[in-house]
Amino acid sequence: MNYKFLIQYDGSRYSGWQKQGNTQKTIQGKMEAVLGKMTGTQVEVHGSGRTDAGVHAYGQTANAHFQTDLSVNQIRDYLNQYLPEDIAVLEVTTVHPRFHSRLNASKKTYCYRIRTNPLRDVFGRKYTYSMEGPFDVHAMRRAAALLTGTHDFTSFCANRRMKKSAVRTIYEIRIEQTEDELEFWFTGDGFLQYMVRILTGTLVETGLGKREADSMTAVLEAKNRDAAGMTMPPQGLALMNVFYMKEPV
Amino acid sequence: MNYKFLIQYDGSRYSGWQKQGNTQKTIQGKMEAVLGKMTGTQVEVHGSGRTDAGVHAYGQTANAHFQTDLSVNQIRDYLNQYLPEDIAVLEVTTVHPRFHSRLNASKKTYCYRIRTNPLRDVFGRKYTYSMEGPFDVHAMRRAAALLTGTHDFTSFCANRRMKKSAVRTIYEIRIEQTEDELEFWFTGDGFLQYMVRILTGTLVETGLGKREADSMTAVLEAKNRDAAGMTMPPQGLALMNVFYMKEPV
Repeated sequence: MNYKFLIQYDGSRYSGWQKQGNTQKTIQGKMEAVLGKMTGTQVEVHGSGRTDAGVHAYGQTANAHFQTDLSVNQIRDYLNQYLPEDIAVLEVTTVHPRFHSRLNASKKTYCYRIRTNPLRDVFGRKYTYSMEGPFDVHAMRRAAALLTGTHDFTSFCANRRMKKSAVRTIYEIRIEQTEDELEFWFTGDGFLQYMVRILTGTLVETGLGKREADSMTAVLEAKNRDAAGMTMPPQGLALMNVFYMKEPV
Repeated sequence: MNYKFLIQYDGSRYSGWQKQGNTQKTIQGKMEAVLGKMTGTQVEVHGSGRTDAGVHAYGQTANAHFQTDLSVNQIRDYLNQYLPEDIAVLEVTTVHPRFHSRLNASKKTYCYRIRTNPLRDVFGRKYTYSMEGPFDVHAMRRAAALLTGTHDFTSFCANRRMKKSAVRTIYEIRIEQTEDELEFWFTGDGFLQYMVRILTGTLVETGLGKREADSMTAVLEAKNRDAAGMTMPPQGLALMNVFYMKEPV
């Protein structure tokens, strides 16, 4: 049977989603260990994509093929019983045998949170990155509008040696300002390595007046990582949602 | 000069507010260490009251007498620079020389949070205690009404050998239910050792049908710790607010 998982995690203690040998702590590794214990066989868990070390997830998805007599709710409860307290499985469902959480994902939403209040929030400290403004939100929104759409995002990718296409579509970049925070919401069909953190860093530099909003077109055209802004630290980033078509192929 | 501090902390890593020798990690100890470094002298910090090991604070208050050339905002910034990231000083103000954060406190508000959703919340896991219901909220509110007012709270005090009066006034007990949580808000003129946690435990047992709401009067009259309910674990508890009269004596 093919099972789909909806997973939440506090990434603070982890080396990211993806397994990296035996010594690293990863969410995929923890999931596979518990499912291996549950089924008595080796289970491979396929995530919708990597999240980097220190990045959080409110709605990561994954799938895995295995046999069990347990119901989906029993599988969920078993996982939550044995997973560490900073990982939670919110939902387990059965899906089409050919469903693949990465290959069938149609859209993803990420959110980057910056705490702009200079006083730290001791309760949210692991889930925001602190930066004092002032930020020109209008300039950031103008820049965001130029980045929205289908572009070659090579300038916003950490991995220069990537051979595959760097063309991605960003459907929406929403920037929200509250009394204490700036939130950057990105929805797109896929994101390259560090892309959300570099996009946020470039928008932040625009908000601080270090870049012109209009320069975004030139940054995209440069197809060169050096043309874009800084890579924001991981702790402000969270994968919020992974979307699928109604009928997985 | 006498300075008043408004302090927030995540109590998870600490042995509570109050200093207990040299080896224990306490919030008072951390505050005194940084103020000692700042002034070059030994500084004694008086809290509005203890919080126990693992208990959090959104609005603890304290005061301390010392001399410095720094402004109140500079003192606040110095403290936040050198305090650990799970303690934050939100505000520093100058107060009357005789102001004492404990002796002049007129009211305090505590909140106890129970997560009733059986799925854990990885991001709030350190600030709630998980219990599945169902809870009879009406019964808990009837019990809370009987506990409100001026009573001898000996039955709700962990320290049986206490010689001083156990008479306290609870101005309000508010029980709020959301989709995922039960919150117990207590406002009173002062609270005995573990009193909020024992009050919450007794209300929880009432909500679970293990006690009658009407039995609260007998529990108070017993003046015996065994008559009341369980002591709830510390991580669900937070000191929210300490109130003072306009003119401290």
